[in-house]
Amino acid sequence: MSAAAGDKAVPTAALLIIGDEILSGRTVDANIAHTARFLTARGIDLREVRVVPDVEAEIVTAVNALRGRYDLLFTTGGIGPTHDDITADAVAKALGVPLDNDARAVAMLKERFGVEGLSEARLRMARIPRGAELIANALTQAPGFSIANVHVMAGVPAIMQAMLDALAPLLPSGRPMLSRTVPADVPESYVAIEFEALQKRFPDVVMGSYPHQRDGRYHTELVLRSRDEARLAAAEDAVRAMVMDVEARKKRTPRDEAARPG
Amino acid sequence: MSAAAGDKAVPTAALLIIGDEILSGRTVDANIAHTARFLTARGIDLREVRVVPDVEAEIVTAVNALRGRYDLLFTTGGIGPTHDDITADAVAKALGVPLDNDARAVAMLKERFGVEGLSEARLRMARIPRGAELIANALTQAPGFSIANVHVMAGVPAIMQAMLDALAPLLPSGRPMLSRTVPADVPESYVAIEFEALQKRFPDVVMGSYPHQRDGRYHTELVLRSRDEARLAAAEDAVRAMVMDVEARKKRTPRDEAARPG
Repeated sequence: MSAAAGDKAVPTAALLIIGDEILSGRTVDANIAHTARFLTARGIDLREVRVVPDVEAEIVTAVNALRGRYDLLFTTGGIGPTHDDITADAVAKALGVPLDNDARAVAMLKERFGVEGLSEARLRMARIPRGAELIANALTQAPGFSIANVHVMAGVPAIMQAMLDALAPLLPSGRPMLSRTVPADVPESYVAIEFEALQKRFPDVVMGSYPHQRDGRYHTELVLRSRDEARLAAAEDAVRAMVMDVEARKKRTPRDEAARPG
Repeated sequence: MSAAAGDKAVPTAALLIIGDEILSGRTVDANIAHTARFLTARGIDLREVRVVPDVEAEIVTAVNALRGRYDLLFTTGGIGPTHDDITADAVAKALGVPLDNDARAVAMLKERFGVEGLSEARLRMARIPRGAELIANALTQAPGFSIANVHVMAGVPAIMQAMLDALAPLLPSGRPMLSRTVPADVPESYVAIEFEALQKRFPDVVMGSYPHQRDGRYHTELVLRSRDEARLAAAEDAVRAMVMDVEARKKRTPRDEAARPG
């Protein structure tokens, strides 16, 4: 249904979040929204997100399902020095390659900690699947890595974001998805029929409706998305005209139903 | 690996978030953390989260994968009155049942809007898979629904939360997962080896390590989780003793490595 779905020139991506702490509710995820915006701005379509626990078999299954289905797979979490950090093991297993003590990663750690500071725990962070490229960043001594179409990053948001920035020049990019938001001062159901008709008139512009509450009243945001500036502008004009019409009609009816959602 | 994984008495759950707006980064998800905490408090293990776009085939595939694998599946999003709300259609298709104009849902909508307010768009929200039970709530006229082990809720956080509360008495519950957090005033790598040894000593207590930054220094939170209060207490004592020991040892070394992450 999505206009982008059929567009072969648009790179697709999935995000795999590895972490018991998200599934238990202990930590509120911040990586989905950041990654989504980062990819959208580069014209890469984020098509799926999964969150799985710190269980090797679960990670292996998810990595293989997602790397096979999308052009790019990003993972976050599980690359630190403690025993619950098993992402490198799982990715090596998923790709069928050995997990090496990577000389480049050891050198990075040595630079930060000195030879005497290179403890067994820190050396754990130099275990990298064979054939991977390292993802360095300014914040942490533990590198991420890229192997095939899988990009493995830290879970701590600031570190993850630095790694994503480091990856940026190496990623493919597509024509960016553009979007316009048309606010409507009525609940969704007031515009639904007309909005659907406009979606049919502009099948190449993805149209979504998002209700939200403000001051105890329900409002609607109509979001239009397309990679074609001209088509998007034409659709926006049509949606704005429709909304003005619906709002004017509503003003003429005495009963205020905006206090009700929907 | 997780201690909970083998516990057959603990209900498992997945959460499926349906929404282009999350994948584009336009909307920051709030439903994962709320659902995770809600389920954790009831002793239900949230084992997987997926976010998929507003595309029927994607929703059908995810619903079938997740409802088959976990005791409970919760979905959020896509049950409003507009054309992009296709969750009811997709769930009906996934379960192989027809989508009816549900008389109970029509009655709910009539109660709210009156007969004259029952527009075509609003009636769309009465389309419910045959055999489902409705999930009412105080905020919205559009009901959610439960069919088999699938619980379909709204995407707007306040409405989703009300629906989850309405569902609560009907859900199974397990022995709640208990957790203790032991703060360590050192980077993760300082405790990694000892922490792993303690994980081996308490294999029935799930132990995770979470680094965080405060005042430019890296600290660590060691999180212990178990359904057994006594074992959790014993593990906590052991971890606290280990952390005190590591912190004391660190104070004796002149070089401050805490400014470095990891």
